[in-house]
Amino acid sequence: MSSRQHFPAPVWTKTDIEGFLDRHFTQARSFGTEILLIEPGYLRAQLPFDKRFLRPGGTISGPTQMTLVDTVFFYLILAHLGDEALAVTTSLNINFLRKPAQAALIAEARLLKLGKTLCVGDATLFSEGDDRPVAHAQLTYSIPPKRVPVPPSAIG
Amino acid sequence: MSSRQHFPAPVWTKTDIEGFLDRHFTQARSFGTEILLIEPGYLRAQLPFDKRFLRPGGTISGPTQMTLVDTVFFYLILAHLGDEALAVTTSLNINFLRKPAQAALIAEARLLKLGKTLCVGDATLFSEGDDRPVAHAQLTYSIPPKRVPVPPSAIG
Amino acid sequence: MSSRQHFPAPVWTKTDIEGFLDRHFTQARSFGTEILLIEPGYLRAQLPFDKRFLRPGGTISGPTQMTLVDTVFFYLILAHLGDEALAVTTSLNINFLRKPAQAALIAEARLLKLGKTLCVGDATLFSEGDDRPVAHAQLTYSIPPKRVPVPPSAIG
Amino acid sequence: MSSRQHFPAPVWTKTDIEGFLDRHFTQARSFGTEILLIEPGYLRAQLPFDKRFLRPGGTISGPTQMTLVDTVFFYLILAHLGDEALAVTTSLNINFLRKPAQAALIAEARLLKLGKTLCVGDATLFSEGDDRPVAHAQLTYSIPPKRVPVPPSAIG
Repeated sequence: MSSRQHFPAPVWTKTDIEGFLDRHFTQARSFGTEILLIEPGYLRAQLPFDKRFLRPGGTISGPTQMTLVDTVFFYLILAHLGDEALAVTTSLNINFLRKPAQAALIAEARLLKLGKTLCVGDATLFSEGDDRPVAHAQLTYSIPPKRVPVPPSAIG
Repeated sequence: MSSRQHFPAPVWTKTDIEGFLDRHFTQARSFGTEILLIEPGYLRAQLPFDKRFLRPGGTISGPTQMTLVDTVFFYLILAHLGDEALAVTTSLNINFLRKPAQAALIAEARLLKLGKTLCVGDATLFSEGDDRPVAHAQLTYSIPPKRVPVPPSAIG
Repeated sequence: MSSRQHFPAPVWTKTDIEGFLDRHFTQARSFGTEILLIEPGYLRAQLPFDKRFLRPGGTISGPTQMTLVDTVFFYLILAHLGDEALAVTTSLNINFLRKPAQAALIAEARLLKLGKTLCVGDATLFSEGDDRPVAHAQLTYSIPPKRVPVPPSAIG
Repeated sequence: MSSRQHFPAPVWTKTDIEGFLDRHFTQARSFGTEILLIEPGYLRAQLPFDKRFLRPGGTISGPTQMTLVDTVFFYLILAHLGDEALAVTTSLNINFLRKPAQAALIAEARLLKLGKTLCVGDATLFSEGDDRPVAHAQLTYSIPPKRVPVPPSAIG
C-alpha cells in the first residue's frame, strides 16, 4: 500500500544535488555516494566499494553503513525540498541484518512523511547483486522554519 | 529491491494461526486483529474500529497502534515458523506519522531477516481508505533455541 | 554527568496531574499508574501488579510495558509544562531486556531535552525489588505551538 | 535505581583495550577516542575536537557522533568481556538533541544488560563543559557463541 502513496514530484535532479554538494558539502562528495535514481518519495544510490570502509573481519564497518543511510536520506529530502530549508537529522535507528559483502552497497531511501516540520522515512542497504538487505534504518529529519525575508521597510 | 527477496513459503495459514491463538492467546484474539493476507515474508491484517481505542482528541491511541504492530509481526513469524519456537519481542521502534482516522487500521508487516536466533522486520499502519501511513515500526524478535528432543538412548 | 543537567522546577504536582487525568484522560487513570516522585527532569511511578497484564508464560505483556513507558513520560511532561501545550508521542523505541516478575513495575522517566517543539527522554522499567532493568525506552514528544490568545481588537 | 544494578568488575583496563586496538583495530585508534574512566557497567571517554569532524554550519557531524557512540559502547563491552567473544553491533538508535559546540565530545556508556547472547545499553554525548546532552543512543550488540577449542584428540 505504501507504494501507492503520492508524493510531489522531486524539484531537484541528480545534477542539482551534486552541484549543491560541490558548493557546500565537499565532505559528502568525497565519501563517494552516487545517485542512481530519483522518483517521487524515493531515491536509490550506490556506494562503490573501497578498502577504507573495511573493518577487521573483512566487513564494511557500521559507521560506513550509518553514514550512507544518513547521506541518501539527506539527498532524498534535497530532491524534494531543494535548499530552501536545510533539514537536520533528529533521529536515526538502524538494524544491522547481515555482514555486507566486499562489494558496492546499494541504498534505497523512501519517504513515509514529508511534513512541514518533520520528515520521516526509511532506508535499506543491500550488497550489490544480493537481494537480502544488510541493514535497515528509520530516519527523522527536522525541517527548520523558512527564513522569512525581512522587508526593507522593517529595517530602516 | 527488497520485494525481490525470497522468503520460504509460510507454513501456517490464517486458520492455523487463529486456532493457535484460541488455544494459547485468547487475549490477542479479543483485541480484534483480523488476518487478510499471508505471503512469503509478508502479512496484512486489519483492526476494525472500536470506540475503546480512542483517546481524547478523537484519535486512536498510541498503545493501540503499538499493540497492533506487535501483534501483526508476531502473526507474521507464526506464519513462517509455526509454534516450534515461540519468538519474543526484543525491540520495537515506532514513529507516529499522522493522526489516524476513526476507521479500521490496516497493518502491513514485512520480514527483513528470518535468522536462526533473530527475526527482524517492519510494519506500517494505515487508516482504511487512505494510502498515507499513520505509523511505521521496526521490530526485532528473538527466537529461542529449539528444544532438541532427547533420544531415548541418552536417558536409560 | 546527565544528573547534573538543570531542568526547571516542575509546575504541576501529583495532585494536579491526577486532577487533569480525571477530567480528560479517565482511560489513563483506569490503567493504574501511581506517581511516586516528581523532581526537576525526573518522575518515578509504579504500576501495581494485575493479572490482566499477564500474557502466556506468566510474564507481563509487551503492550503493558509500552503503555506504562508512554504514560510515565507523558506525566513527566505534564509535570513540567502543565496543560498549556498537550504533547503527543512522535516516537517510542523500546528494548525488552528481561522477563518481568509477577510484581509491580517501577518506572523511571528522565528528560534529556525540553525544547520548544520537541521533548526527548528515556524511561526504564524495573520489577519491584529488583535493580536489573526489564525494559528501557527512548521517547520523543512533539509540543504543538501554543495557541496565542486572539486579542479582542483583532476580532471586531 | 539503575545505578544500583551490580555488574561484574571489568576484566580489561584502558591499557588492555588500547593494546587490543593497536593490534586489531588501528582504524578505531586513529579516530581519536580516549578512555577516561572504566567502572562496573560504565565507561567514560572523550573525543578531542578536530576540524575534520565539522560539517557545514560549524557543527560536529552526525556520522562523527554515531561513530563515537558505537566506539565507546564497543570499548565498554571489551572492558567487561575481553576478547574472548567479539561482539558486533546489531542495532543503534540515536536521538540528536542539540548542536554540539566546537569542543571535545564527552561520551558516557552504560550497560543495561550483559547477557550471554545480547548486550544492551545506552550512551550519552556532551560537549565538554556543558551538562546538557547533545545526543543519546540505545545500542544492542550480539555476542557470538564462544569458539570451543577443539581438543587435539578430536583432530587426528
